[in-house]
Amino acid sequence: MTERVVLAYSGGLDTSVAIPYLAEQTGGEVIAVAVDVGQGGEDLEVIRKRALACGAVEAVVVDAREEFASDFCVPALQANALYMDRYPLVSALSRPLIVKHLAAAAKEFGGTAVAHGCTGKGNDQVRFEAGLAALNPDLKVIAPARDFAWTRDKAIEYAESKGLPIDVSAKSPYSIDQNLWGRAVETGFLEDIWNAPIEDLYDYTSDPSAQRDPDEVVITFRAGVPVALDGRELTPLQIIEELNQRAGAQGVGRIDMVEDRLVGIKSREVYEAPAAIALITAHMELENVTVERDLARFKRSVDQRWGELVYDGLWYSPLKRSLDAFIAESQKHVSGEIRMTLHGGRAVVTGRRSDASLYDHDLATYDTGDTFDQSLAKGFVELWSLPSKIAAVRDRRVQG
Amino acid sequence: MTERVVLAYSGGLDTSVAIPYLAEQTGGEVIAVAVDVGQGGEDLEVIRKRALACGAVEAVVVDAREEFASDFCVPALQANALYMDRYPLVSALSRPLIVKHLAAAAKEFGGTAVAHGCTGKGNDQVRFEAGLAALNPDLKVIAPARDFAWTRDKAIEYAESKGLPIDVSAKSPYSIDQNLWGRAVETGFLEDIWNAPIEDLYDYTSDPSAQRDPDEVVITFRAGVPVALDGRELTPLQIIEELNQRAGAQGVGRIDMVEDRLVGIKSREVYEAPAAIALITAHMELENVTVERDLARFKRSVDQRWGELVYDGLWYSPLKRSLDAFIAESQKHVSGEIRMTLHGGRAVVTGRRSDASLYDHDLATYDTGDTFDQSLAKGFVELWSLPSKIAAVRDRRVQG
Amino acid sequence: MTERVVLAYSGGLDTSVAIPYLAEQTGGEVIAVAVDVGQGGEDLEVIRKRALACGAVEAVVVDAREEFASDFCVPALQANALYMDRYPLVSALSRPLIVKHLAAAAKEFGGTAVAHGCTGKGNDQVRFEAGLAALNPDLKVIAPARDFAWTRDKAIEYAESKGLPIDVSAKSPYSIDQNLWGRAVETGFLEDIWNAPIEDLYDYTSDPSAQRDPDEVVITFRAGVPVALDGRELTPLQIIEELNQRAGAQGVGRIDMVEDRLVGIKSREVYEAPAAIALITAHMELENVTVERDLARFKRSVDQRWGELVYDGLWYSPLKRSLDAFIAESQKHVSGEIRMTLHGGRAVVTGRRSDASLYDHDLATYDTGDTFDQSLAKGFVELWSLPSKIAAVRDRRVQG
Amino acid sequence: MTERVVLAYSGGLDTSVAIPYLAEQTGGEVIAVAVDVGQGGEDLEVIRKRALACGAVEAVVVDAREEFASDFCVPALQANALYMDRYPLVSALSRPLIVKHLAAAAKEFGGTAVAHGCTGKGNDQVRFEAGLAALNPDLKVIAPARDFAWTRDKAIEYAESKGLPIDVSAKSPYSIDQNLWGRAVETGFLEDIWNAPIEDLYDYTSDPSAQRDPDEVVITFRAGVPVALDGRELTPLQIIEELNQRAGAQGVGRIDMVEDRLVGIKSREVYEAPAAIALITAHMELENVTVERDLARFKRSVDQRWGELVYDGLWYSPLKRSLDAFIAESQKHVSGEIRMTLHGGRAVVTGRRSDASLYDHDLATYDTGDTFDQSLAKGFVELWSLPSKIAAVRDRRVQG
Repeated sequence: MTERVVLAYSGGLDTSVAIPYLAEQTGGEVIAVAVDVGQGGEDLEVIRKRALACGAVEAVVVDAREEFASDFCVPALQANALYMDRYPLVSALSRPLIVKHLAAAAKEFGGTAVAHGCTGKGNDQVRFEAGLAALNPDLKVIAPARDFAWTRDKAIEYAESKGLPIDVSAKSPYSIDQNLWGRAVETGFLEDIWNAPIEDLYDYTSDPSAQRDPDEVVITFRAGVPVALDGRELTPLQIIEELNQRAGAQGVGRIDMVEDRLVGIKSREVYEAPAAIALITAHMELENVTVERDLARFKRSVDQRWGELVYDGLWYSPLKRSLDAFIAESQKHVSGEIRMTLHGGRAVVTGRRSDASLYDHDLATYDTGDTFDQSLAKGFVELWSLPSKIAAVRDRRVQG
Repeated sequence: MTERVVLAYSGGLDTSVAIPYLAEQTGGEVIAVAVDVGQGGEDLEVIRKRALACGAVEAVVVDAREEFASDFCVPALQANALYMDRYPLVSALSRPLIVKHLAAAAKEFGGTAVAHGCTGKGNDQVRFEAGLAALNPDLKVIAPARDFAWTRDKAIEYAESKGLPIDVSAKSPYSIDQNLWGRAVETGFLEDIWNAPIEDLYDYTSDPSAQRDPDEVVITFRAGVPVALDGRELTPLQIIEELNQRAGAQGVGRIDMVEDRLVGIKSREVYEAPAAIALITAHMELENVTVERDLARFKRSVDQRWGELVYDGLWYSPLKRSLDAFIAESQKHVSGEIRMTLHGGRAVVTGRRSDASLYDHDLATYDTGDTFDQSLAKGFVELWSLPSKIAAVRDRRVQG
Repeated sequence: MTERVVLAYSGGLDTSVAIPYLAEQTGGEVIAVAVDVGQGGEDLEVIRKRALACGAVEAVVVDAREEFASDFCVPALQANALYMDRYPLVSALSRPLIVKHLAAAAKEFGGTAVAHGCTGKGNDQVRFEAGLAALNPDLKVIAPARDFAWTRDKAIEYAESKGLPIDVSAKSPYSIDQNLWGRAVETGFLEDIWNAPIEDLYDYTSDPSAQRDPDEVVITFRAGVPVALDGRELTPLQIIEELNQRAGAQGVGRIDMVEDRLVGIKSREVYEAPAAIALITAHMELENVTVERDLARFKRSVDQRWGELVYDGLWYSPLKRSLDAFIAESQKHVSGEIRMTLHGGRAVVTGRRSDASLYDHDLATYDTGDTFDQSLAKGFVELWSLPSKIAAVRDRRVQG
Repeated sequence: MTERVVLAYSGGLDTSVAIPYLAEQTGGEVIAVAVDVGQGGEDLEVIRKRALACGAVEAVVVDAREEFASDFCVPALQANALYMDRYPLVSALSRPLIVKHLAAAAKEFGGTAVAHGCTGKGNDQVRFEAGLAALNPDLKVIAPARDFAWTRDKAIEYAESKGLPIDVSAKSPYSIDQNLWGRAVETGFLEDIWNAPIEDLYDYTSDPSAQRDPDEVVITFRAGVPVALDGRELTPLQIIEELNQRAGAQGVGRIDMVEDRLVGIKSREVYEAPAAIALITAHMELENVTVERDLARFKRSVDQRWGELVYDGLWYSPLKRSLDAFIAESQKHVSGEIRMTLHGGRAVVTGRRSDASLYDHDLATYDTGDTFDQSLAKGFVELWSLPSKIAAVRDRRVQG
């Protein structure tokens, strides 16, 4: 039987070259699949035609932006997902979605293998392959960059030798991955971790220190899902797109960090994620208002584990599903409005309001109308302190 | 025997009035203890004399700023202590230190009871009483505001009737607690959580959106302790003071949140903590560079628990000591320099450098000199994915 | 309006006396509610009549055994709930169920207050009152033993003076609480924690060291719920009852421990829980077979928190609901059979079999048919070790 | 330079054959290192001579039993280390000790590589290689069974062809690993997880159901270290050896479970660990008496992580060191005596006594002398319940 390889196709040099190369290597046919997760750039139809021109027997393009927003970004928002308290999982979120469409294409077109362009020292290879192992464990995986030590120079040479219809002249010093939820940039000079980022790195965000007027936005959530901006009902996709514009214009969401990769090394990463950071900031504060204390405390550990798991490529794992069930239940009352000021690189909550609020003015106030019975406190404090007190008495006794 | 009451004395109206009042109520003598934790305001000697003028039989003033910086703020920094990911534990840190000096004064002067001015609906009563229970469980505790329903109006009336040497005219709309590590402000209009804070609330920080030049600072840490600014060796106290100035001038460290109090209610809090936020931001990034991944992941749960425990008044608890031991061991290699830009309300790390770095340029680089053996990745990814894969095969089998 | 007090009624001396006493104290009427959670003893109808004879205006008896088994014991089993790794939460499970029926009776009969017989130093007061606060925060709570310092001697005197139809002569040296899930015994001589329990304490279990033949049982679970014994389909109630007999006859499930009460003290407790211990042992092993590793590891922390929360009286809390959602999802594939030998005080798993098994003989075997590709291991081991290795190189470099 | 390979040598067929084989493969010299961790069997001197007879240029034998008991078993005891709540980490504890002596031998004799006999589907390869990576990252690792697909049949054939002085006739159906802390057995028929273990598998333990008299033992701990049995001061090694005899004679410590291996598969394991189980049971109960509640609750998660980490081969990792620091601090007051009955396969605590006890009879008793102030409970219970209550009010309001 002819091997049919489903290729995660971006339209760029590396994966275009991979089409004839994989056909050559496997003696099979290549099906190119390009998924729009909001990365912008070329028209999907242009990409589709290029894949065919490079020799793909089938070329599938999928506009998955709504799906990405609702089924991948929103769950990340509900988990306040910030890997190492900083990184909102930009690439880690898109990979499982792309994998899903690769597996679907394999099913539709009789694919027996899947190919991706990831190297062997990054996280994305894990996200692709762990995802495929879960969605269709029968599919073989081919990673030319890793398994055949394929490089950019080799790719250019090969493209020229085959006369492929690809522009090999464009040469960016940056390695970029971007989608609706954010943008990651790597480049040589950032590998010296003492070097500061330069303005040229950024695309989603303006310089935070440039002068401009602040922008005020009111974000409405229902059960942990953002549903409106400034009172206008919108889809999650529309909200993310608008906030990328508005928060990005104010320089919100730049991140520069040293990060622990799953493969065991530390790397320097620069990200921009204006909508993600604005939404997570708003969502956390709405949780402060609507989620009970013990639940909020435990949810922090659930959120942390969720972020690690997704970062580590295990989106389609049994633990992920149980964490999701916990989080879904926790979000039932996370409804209300958060008012934020976007300005100078900061997204600052200035007001919150919710029918499901657990904040009780009459219990909290020190003014007239205070309903808190302070006489209860003495007994509470004494029993709360009792274990420490008994331990202190013991320590003293033992130490003589 | 005459009861001797050790009073946590601030020099203000409430605790000044408490001196004759407690003497009256207990038929005993009052020893006033004022502790300088960097709250600024009046001279300690002035405060001491006022206590005596109000009838205290002894008045002790303690400059505890160095001790507070080194033994309370630095451990909080090492734990990246941010309650609910936001609040750097300003008041929660000073209370156990004050308690320590109250217990010491009780021992020195034969005190049999301790009095504090906290109400019955806040956290500070717990911090005082849990601390005292651990340091000297024999001491009785008196909390006039809570136990005798003492109010400001009553205090003024009492002060006037007794002719106490206190200025009762000054009337701030704000209830403030401040120290070296930050400043907390409460006031009536903030109790409507939809209301935004106003500029007048702030004292440690300038308006972040005012125009000014950025300030760049290099912070040096040794084993998790900040030891120098811009290459000048300084004590932790000096570093915190200087950063309060410099980061405060740039509007860094404003916090506005709804918070879960230990007594079970939610309250609205506004804080300023310029040095704390700048230092924690720098420290977290230096940990990213110098702390191994598994340790860093587990330390997040230790840090969270540490912050909750201290917030909840359990500084002198057995669990706190074990968490401290964990953290101390984790800090052995947290040494190096962090370069930050302070500007526009943000403290942004732009560079990091450390002899103890775990970042390995040659493993991380995609350029020439790459020493990472990508051929190892295939086996790693397959075994990493294996449990998810086996589970997926099972799910499919069971679901038919 | 006449106060109507809903009393948690056991039929025993203390709560019988409470009926006229509460009427007297409140000037109101008392509604007695007795709930059968499998505690055995007197007939419910006898209890109902006694309540009326003691002056209750209404007396309600509820056979809640099926509900207790299915809605309280089964969730505890799915959480492998063992407080402090030992105690299967016997009393902690029945209280929230009783509270539910008290709240229902208050609604039906216009109750304005609820009364219970718990003391002020145990856990059950918390379970009653926290439960009521969640189910109907408008109800007042009266705890005569705690709030009026009511004692057994006072109760006897009161019963005699009022000529209540109660036998006050029966005097057990033991304080006992028992239900379907187990039995708790307290008594004076156990308060010396060096004293060993004596055989006379026990009722659900025979002496484990007595000679008898072993009993072998096969327990079938579907989605974490026990559904059959030895192939006979049974309800959870029937399974628990039968296992209490069969495991109890073999001396399984005795527990003797020092325990941390919520009110801050340590107490000595002796329990018997034959069915609970046998079922939890079986369920844990079936999870070992059917639950994926990462999920199993995280579930341990969820299980621990679940047990603490329920022990601490917070059955009806938001965190409990989110933990339940996690656990429910985790149980979807916990289906199969566990074969156990019950003998000599031990419940020992000897076989497991499941259509949803994750155990793969061909991957596990060292014999012919091995499908595990050992060549993958080298890469896995090297990258798994890499963070430790990089840290070791750093440590050596720094230490010189 | 001649390669010098340090071989982890057991004296058995596989590693004896490895001596000439490794010399052949590497063109180098082999140094055999055998470490006594209490596995019993042949005399170390016999083993040493066999290594030389097989061609080793050096043969080192180390009696590491004291070191193993004190530095590996005692820390595991303090962490109550039971992987998956069952397995006391028998092999996982000995590997890092053996690795330490391999690294030492490599240093002493100029070794450039290390060889071990582990396969590619077990955990021990990880423990060897992760340990070596941490102790000496410059050493190469050779694993003939995994890397050269070496099997028992090949080994016999090779031994015969070379005329090695090894008895190849002895053929056990069992694959066994044993040391002071326990014994692991694997064999073909156990790979069917429905099969029950047979009596012939066991060596450390007698049949628990055989009739015999119970054995009572009092174990004394100082700061978490066992220091005496029945009042006789002994070393940890002596205590473990004596308890292996006494608890083993009573059938204590048999374990039969399905286990999650690090390499991603589930396996069936049968263990015996009489001393380990008896000591851990005693130690846990002494912690119940001497460790404060909050510390005890958090320590469970530390203990779980410690066990996972050591199981996963990361003994020499930074996280392990920080967990050790936590545990060491927690053990300061874990001193006292535990009386246990060993009988019928069970190790049952019947008494505990400690100068550092936190159990306070006067607070716990319901008899005369009760010092617990029950009036404190009302306030405690109300504020403890307050968050649930506020949430319940909200739920009701929102649900209408």
